[in-house]
Amino acid sequence: MPTLPDSELWFSEVHDPAGTAQSWRLNAVRLDQRRTPYQHIEIFDTTTYGKLMSIDGCVMLTTRDNFLYHEMMTHPALFTHPNPENVVIIGGGDCGTLREVLKHNSISSVVQIDIDEQVTRLAELYFPELCDSNDDPRASLLFEDGLAWIRNAADSSADILIIDSTDPIGPAEGLFGPDFVQQCHRVLRDGGLLVQQSESPLVHQALIKGIRRNMGDAGFGDLRTLGFPQPCYPSGWWSVTLGVKGSHSLDTFRHHDARSKAFTTHYYTPEIHRGALCEPPFLEAALK
Amino acid sequence: MPTLPDSELWFSEVHDPAGTAQSWRLNAVRLDQRRTPYQHIEIFDTTTYGKLMSIDGCVMLTTRDNFLYHEMMTHPALFTHPNPENVVIIGGGDCGTLREVLKHNSISSVVQIDIDEQVTRLAELYFPELCDSNDDPRASLLFEDGLAWIRNAADSSADILIIDSTDPIGPAEGLFGPDFVQQCHRVLRDGGLLVQQSESPLVHQALIKGIRRNMGDAGFGDLRTLGFPQPCYPSGWWSVTLGVKGSHSLDTFRHHDARSKAFTTHYYTPEIHRGALCEPPFLEAALK
Repeated sequence: MPTLPDSELWFSEVHDPAGTAQSWRLNAVRLDQRRTPYQHIEIFDTTTYGKLMSIDGCVMLTTRDNFLYHEMMTHPALFTHPNPENVVIIGGGDCGTLREVLKHNSISSVVQIDIDEQVTRLAELYFPELCDSNDDPRASLLFEDGLAWIRNAADSSADILIIDSTDPIGPAEGLFGPDFVQQCHRVLRDGGLLVQQSESPLVHQALIKGIRRNMGDAGFGDLRTLGFPQPCYPSGWWSVTLGVKGSHSLDTFRHHDARSKAFTTHYYTPEIHRGALCEPPFLEAALK
Repeated sequence: MPTLPDSELWFSEVHDPAGTAQSWRLNAVRLDQRRTPYQHIEIFDTTTYGKLMSIDGCVMLTTRDNFLYHEMMTHPALFTHPNPENVVIIGGGDCGTLREVLKHNSISSVVQIDIDEQVTRLAELYFPELCDSNDDPRASLLFEDGLAWIRNAADSSADILIIDSTDPIGPAEGLFGPDFVQQCHRVLRDGGLLVQQSESPLVHQALIKGIRRNMGDAGFGDLRTLGFPQPCYPSGWWSVTLGVKGSHSLDTFRHHDARSKAFTTHYYTPEIHRGALCEPPFLEAALK
């Protein structure tokens, strides 16, 4: 049976319940690591994907392919909202989502709340390109509990809330629960958008269904799960689920603004946005 | 460093030069295998992806996710051609591509030419759902050399030629060469389409560039590389490259027919087709 050669260095992540594993060949044993009160963060140097950050053994991002996730966590929502000014990011400690949000000129404030400061400190060292907007005067980086933060946030104070969390086990578990989603609904203005990373369309359909049920129960109107390629995550295929507060439709977005945007994207285009809005039939059937 | 547990059975494929590996947990050591004059074909029983066929250690397909590849290798081309009647498939021994092509009522003949009969014999045993159109009177299954077949085929005798091959090493190498592509151009009618599996948009850009160069040199007009998720292949992200003979555009397709089609697809929709026609900026830049 074909196996991984013992003579080489590999970082492997077993995906359960997906029943698969993915491995990266390494240049060195490990570059860095921090054990924090919340989790174990490690940094590896892969031979072909650049740096790799893992948390508790799960790959969070690599240099080479994080653009896919960060662009799809931000631009579809930001080009759907008519005039996004105030954005909140829960999680997102690697700062890649923050960087993409700040590319939009309409933004006046972004608050990022990650429970673990060491994620950001390690990102600054090993993914500096993701942190190059951290000093933007519109950005506030807080290191505290996102669940507590949202409970204390004012009603109708945000245009977009982005849940850029780890998997729904460990410290991020509460970020997938109904209470948290209700708080998000309260904190959003009418027409505001909740954006949640929602794992693999192929292997995490029950989770996506749960996310959508919570959003619907909390009062979000139109819901949409957009798929995109993400090689470093289980199945290489990931998703983001959008919910809108009020009766607005997620079908329409500022196509012209997306077409004429003044900044660069590597994956996002308005055509890809429109294609992603159409859930493939197998997923539509599974989410019924 | 996280590794695969020795206590479990895994099938692993190392992807070079991608520098990654992917593994599936197995229920049993191996279900079946054939050593043929061309290659070593093996069948495994995974815990979550159904059956898995590998050739010379490379995963060809799994029960769970082959629908993505087979739908994207066929329906974009078949809904682009105004009236596809005669289709030729080079490779494709698992018969999944053949099955999708035969769903189109305009088809009067499909010839499938795979060099290795044992691929089809094993598919009949372990992927019977892909072979359920093999007895269709419009289908001819030949087991011979596709390179020789195409050299002997009549000028302007096919509407669509689908190159559903293994990787461009070993028996399939010639199917990626300029001579073969020129023969394909000769055999296609005006307005005909060449369809070639073209590997990962992320990790095989040089190969895609070569495929497109060969197609352009052979006289194909409009070219388009459509990406799609494919979990069982390196990076989980795959592509198909389309070329058209003549001055037709690949931008337009029979959107209404695709919308009102009488058969089921699990991934393909006209919206996904349109989204895939837009190459993401990083790929567009790499292919320049």
